[in-house]
Amino acid sequence: MIFLFTDFGAADLYVGQVKGVLAERAPGIPVIDLLHEAPAFNVKASAHLLAALAERLPRGSVVFAVVDPGVGGKRDAVVVRSDGRYFVGPDNGLLSVAAARAERRTVWSITWRPRTLARSFHGRDLFAPIAAAIARGDFPEARLKRKPRLAASFGADDLAEVIYVDHYGNAATGLRASGVSRRARLVVKGTWIAHARVFSEAPQGEVFWYENSIGLVEIAANSVSAAAKLGLRVGQRLAVETA
Amino acid sequence: MIFLFTDFGAADLYVGQVKGVLAERAPGIPVIDLLHEAPAFNVKASAHLLAALAERLPRGSVVFAVVDPGVGGKRDAVVVRSDGRYFVGPDNGLLSVAAARAERRTVWSITWRPRTLARSFHGRDLFAPIAAAIARGDFPEARLKRKPRLAASFGADDLAEVIYVDHYGNAATGLRASGVSRRARLVVKGTWIAHARVFSEAPQGEVFWYENSIGLVEIAANSVSAAAKLGLRVGQRLAVETA
Amino acid sequence: MIFLFTDFGAADLYVGQVKGVLAERAPGIPVIDLLHEAPAFNVKASAHLLAALAERLPRGSVVFAVVDPGVGGKRDAVVVRSDGRYFVGPDNGLLSVAAARAERRTVWSITWRPRTLARSFHGRDLFAPIAAAIARGDFPEARLKRKPRLAASFGADDLAEVIYVDHYGNAATGLRASGVSRRARLVVKGTWIAHARVFSEAPQGEVFWYENSIGLVEIAANSVSAAAKLGLRVGQRLAVETA
Repeated sequence: MIFLFTDFGAADLYVGQVKGVLAERAPGIPVIDLLHEAPAFNVKASAHLLAALAERLPRGSVVFAVVDPGVGGKRDAVVVRSDGRYFVGPDNGLLSVAAARAERRTVWSITWRPRTLARSFHGRDLFAPIAAAIARGDFPEARLKRKPRLAASFGADDLAEVIYVDHYGNAATGLRASGVSRRARLVVKGTWIAHARVFSEAPQGEVFWYENSIGLVEIAANSVSAAAKLGLRVGQRLAVETA
Repeated sequence: MIFLFTDFGAADLYVGQVKGVLAERAPGIPVIDLLHEAPAFNVKASAHLLAALAERLPRGSVVFAVVDPGVGGKRDAVVVRSDGRYFVGPDNGLLSVAAARAERRTVWSITWRPRTLARSFHGRDLFAPIAAAIARGDFPEARLKRKPRLAASFGADDLAEVIYVDHYGNAATGLRASGVSRRARLVVKGTWIAHARVFSEAPQGEVFWYENSIGLVEIAANSVSAAAKLGLRVGQRLAVETA
Repeated sequence: MIFLFTDFGAADLYVGQVKGVLAERAPGIPVIDLLHEAPAFNVKASAHLLAALAERLPRGSVVFAVVDPGVGGKRDAVVVRSDGRYFVGPDNGLLSVAAARAERRTVWSITWRPRTLARSFHGRDLFAPIAAAIARGDFPEARLKRKPRLAASFGADDLAEVIYVDHYGNAATGLRASGVSRRARLVVKGTWIAHARVFSEAPQGEVFWYENSIGLVEIAANSVSAAAKLGLRVGQRLAVETA
């Protein structure tokens, strides 16, 4: 299975071109849109979101992960195998949080270059063919070269920031809920936010935090947009106050 | 075939997680996005829209239908077979209009609970595995229990309200066009709206109603947004005046 | 493979209905969303965008192309085979740029009408069944009639206008970059725009033009939205000044 995680825009004309390449080169392999609205100019937030999502994907999955503001510049193109999942994307930190948290990881530089390579769209021309080859079980050894580690890494630690705001207005953070006591409160923009187990537990309109479906601390509100109410955006910093 | 009808957002990160589960558990079964922008906090409008869409789906289809503001609360999780189509979703009224209009229906409560069940995402953890099992022809009897009827039902009647506004600005209502005379006029917010057969029949900018492609009365305007022009939103009530 | 190019809206309820028909009638054939946000009321811009995208699709592909503001009116419904690719859509100019640029083309009128044909949704009821038949290798001769040429054509020439604005705010034009000197400057709304090879070559915030990933001249800016900065929309005219 190939999962796509990008900032290409769900409604834009880039994803279809990538899927055309995958369908040609890895026929019959399911391709699943994980997210195409990853924070475009915040690779660190995207890296934390990717790590949380990827942890739940089947072993053997191929994750095409491209948030790549530096496309056409000097960053390397890489394949990372971590805990049995393959990631294909730029070496700009995007894959680094998932890699740093894995028990085992192997990193390859993509040395191959296609005959036609659009400077602004390595996703279609470079990463998609490599992802397709891996997904169809044809690991492209000859197009790769082992390297000791990723050049850009954000490390394994949590990130005390908003990393994603969904269409309901819930704001996911880079904090893993497993490490945060249910009695702890978040402090964001001067507001104290307590824990609630489920939406229906909180009075209507009240802001609370809970463990979201990918294991992260998320700020939400019952029936209203927490992000609008508190003015939250990706990159907003926050603190955890333990009781 | 599995059809998805949700309020998860077409561009958000929820649909992909559901599709990951379906691809793993029902490999080779086509999964089709019917709509992911169903009216999020208006289950009744969503129920009417689902009923109109579902009527046109092939018999044997599985419809994963989740608009579920009460997720994590006390509402039941159900499977409904109506006229040969299977619906999987919450027992909050969402499936009830389609069920009430069917000639035959059978209702099951989903008694099974997965080992890991995110309180905020039954779609991925509970409904998707059940939908996958049905779609691959492996009806999960042991995980279900017959119940006499849905607990929450809006009934079979039409709904004289706007139930959906599309990206062109056309406003679909919960009125089935088969029951409305072409000579009738709609009255909405003090405006009288006459019938036109096709867009090109109405003068540019003029608001009219017509039978849309899923059999509903829809308010539209030639080359402009009827919803913007009249200030229409989901839930707006209207009346039918017969000549 | 079937590629979809429409103005149906990526988040709206139309694409899923088309895919339902394709999945039923062309089972196992991959269906890929190329774009569903084609400029809705600008068939000419859409035609130029389609031509640029289609050139890169595999031979043998079927392109379901529907931007059809005159649906239900008098325009013909057609199939065009050009350079080994099949296009199915309205004869309103949409397919004409791709056709005019092809070395060989054959045009058929779709004479068949389905039993149920929604006046506002030929995409689902008329074009999808024809596209499905072609894609499964069952060319529907009996439902078609050769015609000498398309009734509506914009010709093969470039279009000196903005034809698409993507979600990053980059504005693609109908000019093919292969015909424009890298020393040429664009003039748009009184602003002179020079060429840059890659984004990172331009100072942050500066507007430049470059060859985009489908071979078109595109106006962009490093880290900001060029469209917002210059107030660009689809249809904006521009000129090329050669040094």
